[in-house]
Formats: sequence, C-alpha cells, structure tokens
Amino acid sequence: MAAHGESPSTPDTAQVISDAAVRLFHDHGYHGTSIRDIAGEAKVGIATLFHHHRSKAELLRRIMDTALDDLLAEMEPAVAAAGDDPTARLSVVVRTYVRRQCESPMHNAIVTSEMRSLEPPLLDEPASKRDRVHQLFESAIVDGVASGTFVCDVPVEAARAVHAMCSAVSGWYRDDGRMAPDEVAELYVGMALRVVGARELAPAS
Amino acid sequence: MAAHGESPSTPDTAQVISDAAVRLFHDHGYHGTSIRDIAGEAKVGIATLFHHHRSKAELLRRIMDTALDDLLAEMEPAVAAAGDDPTARLSVVVRTYVRRQCESPMHNAIVTSEMRSLEPPLLDEPASKRDRVHQLFESAIVDGVASGTFVCDVPVEAARAVHAMCSAVSGWYRDDGRMAPDEVAELYVGMALRVVGARELAPAS
Repeated sequence: MAAHGESPSTPDTAQVISDAAVRLFHDHGYHGTSIRDIAGEAKVGIATLFHHHRSKAELLRRIMDTALDDLLAEMEPAVAAAGDDPTARLSVVVRTYVRRQCESPMHNAIVTSEMRSLEPPLLDEPASKRDRVHQLFESAIVDGVASGTFVCDVPVEAARAVHAMCSAVSGWYRDDGRMAPDEVAELYVGMALRVVGARELAPAS
Repeated sequence: MAAHGESPSTPDTAQVISDAAVRLFHDHGYHGTSIRDIAGEAKVGIATLFHHHRSKAELLRRIMDTALDDLLAEMEPAVAAAGDDPTARLSVVVRTYVRRQCESPMHNAIVTSEMRSLEPPLLDEPASKRDRVHQLFESAIVDGVASGTFVCDVPVEAARAVHAMCSAVSGWYRDDGRMAPDEVAELYVGMALRVVGARELAPAS
C-alpha cells in the first residue's frame, strides 16, 4: 500500500499518465512538453512515469497508435459492411472518420500534427496505420470513379482534399452542444460526395 | 570589414537567419528547434542572431507575419478585382491561396501548425491576419449562398472545409514538376466550387 501523500501505482496509472500527456502534447506540442511537465500534470513521480512508459517518444507513439487503432477498429468493419456501392462506402468512411474527430479531438489532432515528431522505428507503425486510413478514402473514391458513380478527373487529389477537410474537424470541434458528432459527420458526408461528383447523394444517415 | 572566418553581418543577415529558422521550424517544429540550432544552421553567432531578432518567439511571429502579409497582398487585390460575382470571387480566393501554398509550402505549413506556439501579444497580429484570410473564404461563400449562386445549407462549415483542404496543399506539394502551382490551384478551384454547390463552374483559369 502506498505511503500517505504518495500516488499509488494502480493499473490505471499508465492511463492517467497517457491522458496527461495527451492534454499537454495537444496544448503545447510534443517538443513543447517535458517529461517533468507530464509527471506533474499526472501527479506522479518521474520514476513512476518511466516505470510505465520507456520514453517521451514511446508515449507519443502509444497515443498515436491508440488513436489510429480506435479509428481503424471503427472504420474497417463499417466499410466492409457497406458493400461495393462507392457512395455508401465513401459515406461510411467519412462518417466514421469525422465522428471520431469529434469524439476524440485531442488524440486525432495529435495524430495529424505530431507525426513529424517521431522517427523510425517508432514512426513505422503509426505511419503505416495512417496510410491504411488514407487508403480507405482513396480506394472508395478511385473505385467510384472507375465505376462511373463519381465524376472526378483527379481521384487521388480529391482523396487528399476530403481526408484533409475531415481531419481539420478535430481542430475546431467543441463538445458545447451546438452540433452533435453525428450532425457534423453528415455535413461532411454531403461535402465529400460533392467533391467527388457523386451522381446521387446518399441517404442522410 | 569582418575578420577572416567570421560571418559578416550584412543587411541580408536577418533574412539568412529567418530562412534557417523556417527550415528548422518546418522540419522539427518551433519547440523542437533551439536558438543555438538556428544560429548553427544560419552560420552566425548567437550574438548576431540576437542583434537581428529579439527572441525565438519574435522570429516565429515575423515568419508568420511575412507569410500572411504575402498571402493577403496577393489575395485581397485579386478578390477586389474579381467583382461581385460569387463564383469568380471564390475562384480567385482559392486560386491565389493554393498557389501560395505551392510556392511557399514551408512558410504556409508553419502558419498552420505553429499558431498555437505563440501567445499574446505576439500572437495577436498573425491571428488577426489569419482571420482576414479566412474571412475571404467565408464571405465569398456566404454571399454566394445568399444570392442563390451557391446551393449549400452550411456556408460557415463549407468555408472551414474549403480553407482546410486548401491549407493541406502545403503539406504534400513538392516542386518536382509533376504538377505546376497553377494546375494544383485549378483543381482546388473546381473542388471548392463543388463543395459549395456552385450552379455553374468557373472558366478553367
């Protein structure tokens, strides 16, 4: 049992430290945050922090991996369930992606802004997961153009544009009740289908 | 005259230092770059650096201000010359903005990624200039919806989406000859007009 005044190291301590790091990386950037800052924010000692996380870079890698795993766990089965119709597929890609930006804006903003702060080998996994996410956008658009469902001369650039506009949601979305995540997601589904020149728009949900 | 082996402090020294800071802030982030790194990259001493720039934050503010001044100097007269037609106005906004992202990708990526690294009062000017840039997107879209030229239920969100997709160009554009800045700009004009539901598309240039 921990002595009075000392933080006990529970199974949740790793998570408390990680949550503290998310807040600080989000507000001040990875390089603007020290290990000491994170320990202070998490109310643990430096030794406890290093017991749970090998380094600041390793902590960033885990945060990114978790955010990307959550994204892929939601997106990939939903895309598989959407079948072959390109409009349904792109709608599901945008809907699930934007919803995660709203529900977990700090984690997703860190994925976008701090990828450059990691170097191989720590960069390898998050970078390949981010590529898998991008592929969901790109393949839905490329296949939709190939089948004539979308009318768009530049599917690769359209995929970049749609992915970027959806990612930016994590920068401005605030959970203040003005718009629910589902509403934001439907707005972006509509805009994405316009970008790719969808012949008919998908149903609203 | 400077002694042999010592960098002379010419009128361009401030610019050499600023260019070095742009490369380092772009590649490693503002917080990932020290004053010593910048002096080393610029091949000047620390004292020379501080003779030209009061602090690292002041250097970042100047870099952002210059990038935003360049943007506004190109965008505002072009928008004024485009007249009242919303399609022409939005086309000019997107065209001039995207062209600057291609021509000066590092400066513009820093504007997007490092705004959070400044605090008031240094933040005030760049933040208000960035708002002026955003207003050019938003007012063209809001006016176009009001006049019935654009068919879009959510002009404010469309402005955010279009601005974000155009900003992302600075993250991937490379001057490798595959696409010229003008070509990229026209692709984005086309995509932006689709997002806002323009009734007729603008001429291609």
